[in-house]
Amino acid sequence: MSIREEIIQQPDVIQNILDHQWENIKQVASKIRQEDINYVFLAARGTSDHAGIYAKYLFGMQNRIPVALAAPSLFSIYGSSPKIEKSLILAISQSGQSPDIVSVLESGNQQGLPTLAITNEVNSPLAKASKFVLDISAGEEKAVAATKTYTAQLMTIALLSIALSEDWQKLEEIRKLPEMLSATLKLESIVERAVEQYYYMKRCVIIGRGFNYATAFEWALKMKELAYLVAEPYSSADFLHGPIAMVEQGFPVFMVATSGSVYSKLRDLAIELKEEKKANLMIISDQEEILKYSSAPLKLERDLPEWLSPLVSIIPAQLFCMYLAKFKNFDINNPRGLSKVTKTI
Amino acid sequence: MSIREEIIQQPDVIQNILDHQWENIKQVASKIRQEDINYVFLAARGTSDHAGIYAKYLFGMQNRIPVALAAPSLFSIYGSSPKIEKSLILAISQSGQSPDIVSVLESGNQQGLPTLAITNEVNSPLAKASKFVLDISAGEEKAVAATKTYTAQLMTIALLSIALSEDWQKLEEIRKLPEMLSATLKLESIVERAVEQYYYMKRCVIIGRGFNYATAFEWALKMKELAYLVAEPYSSADFLHGPIAMVEQGFPVFMVATSGSVYSKLRDLAIELKEEKKANLMIISDQEEILKYSSAPLKLERDLPEWLSPLVSIIPAQLFCMYLAKFKNFDINNPRGLSKVTKTI
Repeated sequence: MSIREEIIQQPDVIQNILDHQWENIKQVASKIRQEDINYVFLAARGTSDHAGIYAKYLFGMQNRIPVALAAPSLFSIYGSSPKIEKSLILAISQSGQSPDIVSVLESGNQQGLPTLAITNEVNSPLAKASKFVLDISAGEEKAVAATKTYTAQLMTIALLSIALSEDWQKLEEIRKLPEMLSATLKLESIVERAVEQYYYMKRCVIIGRGFNYATAFEWALKMKELAYLVAEPYSSADFLHGPIAMVEQGFPVFMVATSGSVYSKLRDLAIELKEEKKANLMIISDQEEILKYSSAPLKLERDLPEWLSPLVSIIPAQLFCMYLAKFKNFDINNPRGLSKVTKTI
Repeated sequence: MSIREEIIQQPDVIQNILDHQWENIKQVASKIRQEDINYVFLAARGTSDHAGIYAKYLFGMQNRIPVALAAPSLFSIYGSSPKIEKSLILAISQSGQSPDIVSVLESGNQQGLPTLAITNEVNSPLAKASKFVLDISAGEEKAVAATKTYTAQLMTIALLSIALSEDWQKLEEIRKLPEMLSATLKLESIVERAVEQYYYMKRCVIIGRGFNYATAFEWALKMKELAYLVAEPYSSADFLHGPIAMVEQGFPVFMVATSGSVYSKLRDLAIELKEEKKANLMIISDQEEILKYSSAPLKLERDLPEWLSPLVSIIPAQLFCMYLAKFKNFDINNPRGLSKVTKTI
């Protein structure tokens, strides 16, 4: 099993969650709805933290529930955790092993709050410490860099959001996802050629906003894990508050700019970066207009609902990092210095 | 007025807040204490966002109030802001001009919540939109890259935390700050020499944890704004969850590791990075033990309380970025592509 196979599996993983996990998600959601909750308090690290960013935007917008990202060290090291009232404590972890994330759930239990774990390991310490558990059921992920477990986490979060809001119409949109992911995988040969100009790249920035702020973070992490590059994620707004000073002629900027409310902001930034700063852009989008500024057209399917776009837009990003690492002759399944399970305190 | 003068001014700016703003901070705190508040909901961008990270740790630990960082685009672009209950809405901005940050405060007002602005411009749109205002009174900051307004924001947050908890003993600790900042400024000549080996550096990572997670972010932003480098901030725990794969022989790692609860984690990481990965480390610390792994000894005063350390540890970081930019012949007062006030929506 290689990382490429795990990337290719993603439409099936998403379909599997729809087919086999939706009932459990609905049941858990109906129990959570009985609790008096004003906030979601979220703990996660690495790729799972990026699924948490997606949850922050989705719950904030569609469920109108604010999401606070926990500082796990307050719980695990300082031992002086904040007093959390009327909140759902949500922990996201592929392996469910990291003690600092478990400690946030345990603090939630001690404070009498409902706790929920979203994990690929239903027998993990995290799942055992949690009142409610959602199984992302992605199957074993052997490659060290997470791919299918990330989209499975996003899918589980998207379904949980629907079940909490009881907005059943959105189910119709989400049912189209496996097909959209399959269509997006056809970009593989374009991506394989697109990586070549980046052989000597040492650092880059990756820009997204709104729902795809999560995609920028996850793309950047794959760049680091697989291609050993310094790749920093930004919202287009934060990028303008200082970091744009870095951009010189040929500076590599990666961007996720799908249709929706934030699209025009990203397009304007792309034009400024390309025409004024002479940056080198690589853009993932469903819009022809912005793709003309991209070194290669990483074009997504049309009619992609903005709220679901992160599940699709990450696919070419995963392929990009895998092929760049392969082109540089790195071990794409076992990157140096990493292990699959990271336990931090 | 140059950025160096503004860096040097910082002990006076901090003293000035103690002398002239403490009464107002106490009054605002006593009014906030009358409100029914379970959360602080915080909006900020750029340097002010890093002051927000400090607030997240400080309020979480010393006041046991969880802090949620807002996603401003939910308010300004998506127009579907989360429903926020029993929270203080806190906005931090030097200029008080950015419409997206103002929109978060306005949403708070509409939802009937107490709103607080921490700003250097008490006549700004942000201050006008806010029920309560704390003036950081740092004087005009002319250099584009923020230095004294950052420490002034941290100082205001630290005093607000004391006033909210009525832990007056902590005032004794905070009164020593101006002297500690002055002592730290004496590192200037060491820093000026220390930057030389970094002339050709293109990218780096900057590591902190706990209270100095904020320092890592702010140091990284100054690296980008002044020296045009890709510099990515990490907590030591997140760094182990993937990004450590980037580190090869000679890879530049910057670290803030002051005494306290998280120190041993940072020391262990420094040893691993130096001895196993052969990374090139530059460390800011008050501990001799870890400084032996640093290319130059950026040594802080002893007896620095952990909760106040971010006000002191940022000083050598500011000097470092300024001198590196100067060494590279960049315009340290007016970096390319930036303006002092950034208005984003």
